Amino acid sequence: MNTASRSVVSKIVAAIESPSELWLTRARAHLDVLTKPPGSLGMLEDIAAQMVSIRQEDFAEPLRKAVYIFAADHGVTAEGVSAYPSEVTRQMVLNFLAQGAAINVLARLHRVEMNVVDVGVDAHFDGVDGLLHCKVRKGTRNMLDEAAMSDAELAQALEVGSRLAEEARAKGQSLFAVGEMGIGNTTSASAITSVLTNKPVALVTGKGTGLDAAALEHKRKIIEAVIQKHFRTAGTDSTPDPLEVLRCVGGLEIAAMTGLILGAARSGIAVVADGFISTAAAAIAYAIEPRVRGYLFAGHQSEEPGHRVLLEYVGLKPILSLNMRLGEGTGAVLAMPIVESAMCLYNEMATFASAGVSEAKL
Amino acid sequence: MNTASRSVVSKIVAAIESPSELWLTRARAHLDVLTKPPGSLGMLEDIAAQMVSIRQEDFAEPLRKAVYIFAADHGVTAEGVSAYPSEVTRQMVLNFLAQGAAINVLARLHRVEMNVVDVGVDAHFDGVDGLLHCKVRKGTRNMLDEAAMSDAELAQALEVGSRLAEEARAKGQSLFAVGEMGIGNTTSASAITSVLTNKPVALVTGKGTGLDAAALEHKRKIIEAVIQKHFRTAGTDSTPDPLEVLRCVGGLEIAAMTGLILGAARSGIAVVADGFISTAAAAIAYAIEPRVRGYLFAGHQSEEPGHRVLLEYVGLKPILSLNMRLGEGTGAVLAMPIVESAMCLYNEMATFASAGVSEAKL
Repeated sequence: MNTASRSVVSKIVAAIESPSELWLTRARAHLDVLTKPPGSLGMLEDIAAQMVSIRQEDFAEPLRKAVYIFAADHGVTAEGVSAYPSEVTRQMVLNFLAQGAAINVLARLHRVEMNVVDVGVDAHFDGVDGLLHCKVRKGTRNMLDEAAMSDAELAQALEVGSRLAEEARAKGQSLFAVGEMGIGNTTSASAITSVLTNKPVALVTGKGTGLDAAALEHKRKIIEAVIQKHFRTAGTDSTPDPLEVLRCVGGLEIAAMTGLILGAARSGIAVVADGFISTAAAAIAYAIEPRVRGYLFAGHQSEEPGHRVLLEYVGLKPILSLNMRLGEGTGAVLAMPIVESAMCLYNEMATFASAGVSEAKL
Repeated sequence: MNTASRSVVSKIVAAIESPSELWLTRARAHLDVLTKPPGSLGMLEDIAAQMVSIRQEDFAEPLRKAVYIFAADHGVTAEGVSAYPSEVTRQMVLNFLAQGAAINVLARLHRVEMNVVDVGVDAHFDGVDGLLHCKVRKGTRNMLDEAAMSDAELAQALEVGSRLAEEARAKGQSLFAVGEMGIGNTTSASAITSVLTNKPVALVTGKGTGLDAAALEHKRKIIEAVIQKHFRTAGTDSTPDPLEVLRCVGGLEIAAMTGLILGAARSGIAVVADGFISTAAAAIAYAIEPRVRGYLFAGHQSEEPGHRVLLEYVGLKPILSLNMRLGEGTGAVLAMPIVESAMCLYNEMATFASAGVSEAKL
């Protein structure tokens, strides 16, 4: 089953190692001699230690940051699950290229290289400049009727992401933000979350870009039906294979993000996940290979209720919690100055000895 | 009572106006036509709207950021309320000037002008470069025995802060972070919090820089005794005057921060409070003049238990929550990139109309 996609993933997974425990211990020891009460920088100390364990070096060069925004459409939008028409995916891709979207502003301000990847938008972008042209298919199939992707399509989308990670490594990039644009993709993420974590659909499904109560109820019913169709067959109670989950109820952008995250872990690049959708990709990657977790940060806590469930599933604590629910990688890029701050504190603070500051007397 | 300090404060307060309601409404309307689902930038939208209402302009120049770190010693350290010896105040001031402290690293990274103000350190700094020499007294008196300050000393410390706000305005600064350094000052902040909010000492007193359980118990008993001495006289059940609270159980750095915050509100400068101590100053300023609130942001949620109580008292929601408990203005400066992000999003994002993006269909 899923021979093509399994083959893509197996090759990457075989090369993934956990971040260094030795460097983690060294980082902790270094943090404790800096001129501050031990532990008083809170989560910044955890972030710094994790970054050192990923990069396996003490006095690192400045981070080279990039955001990857994967765009794709979803066949399930035919069922009326979103507040916005699906042509907004195409329109927002053009907005990204015209520098007008929220993620453009944040990437500029925080000096993050911006990459917009068409992996499955239902539109012609031939000849459009500034876009990474990696279209696998013009949107997924309607997952209420059939699997969202074929095995070959899934394999191709995974490869888009993993190839980008490889290219980024060659360019010397060291910190990724992953984001997305795809009208209908909270429906896909909710289905993934429910199947992967075995939590009720109602608990993990929210209003997306802004559904009212009746439309939210409809969305939940569609997701229930989708899951029933693909996974709740008689006698199977075990958690389905993550690649099969991705193929049946995922999206092309979610598959590409999964490939990027697996590829980043293989290449020793840290990844800041964004909100609900990108964390769904992180959860699939983690389900495929748990060692991925050591390379992951959660940029923020999204307003979508399923996001909290996914963060718990992967074991991530969000850096920010600002009631955002936009996607595009905005929450991930916004967390990057915090990650950079943690690294700079680690690298640049004086020690008690070097500064002649007395330590605690108790 | 407190004629001198009251006179200083009255002059400032008379010139404080609330941020503009008109600009707040205009900002909200502008945020709703930007290319994102309405409200999807969460707290960033609140921050942007508040900044616009403070600055009363639509397309603002880049923010000019400064952090003020007020340093002072506390007579009550004679009672053994801190994990660190009080000479650490002086040592850390020298560490600030040598660029080795956490706040130096963060101010450099986030391009924030750094100002270190000696308002009451128990040390000679004569001839020391790079320090703002505003010493009122070498540390407060031991508030277990007598009021921490005289009325004249309080007035002088308040003036230090308000004068700095005035000078900053002349220099064109538009966003302050307020921080402090003062061994023993969580004891002072806990006493202020308990008296101002009428909450039990045990609820608002934490381990500061790192007390163990027995030392924390001792600290609580000292604070109880301090409050008993100054405020719990027979027949008085009303909340004491905030200036009297500041004079009896405050610190010189807390008084100077109060002056800075009042002065900033008068000058239309936004202020990001840091942790427990600077929020105690913000709470005193708010108790003196509630219109101050419109100029305030809470940079982060500190680990000190009293901080939550103070944020509720003033009505502020923390931007960050990273389990930090360092002071120095670190949490405030770390929140500045978030405030800047909010402003840039407001100023630079495309509108639905300009980008040709469809609006919600529901």
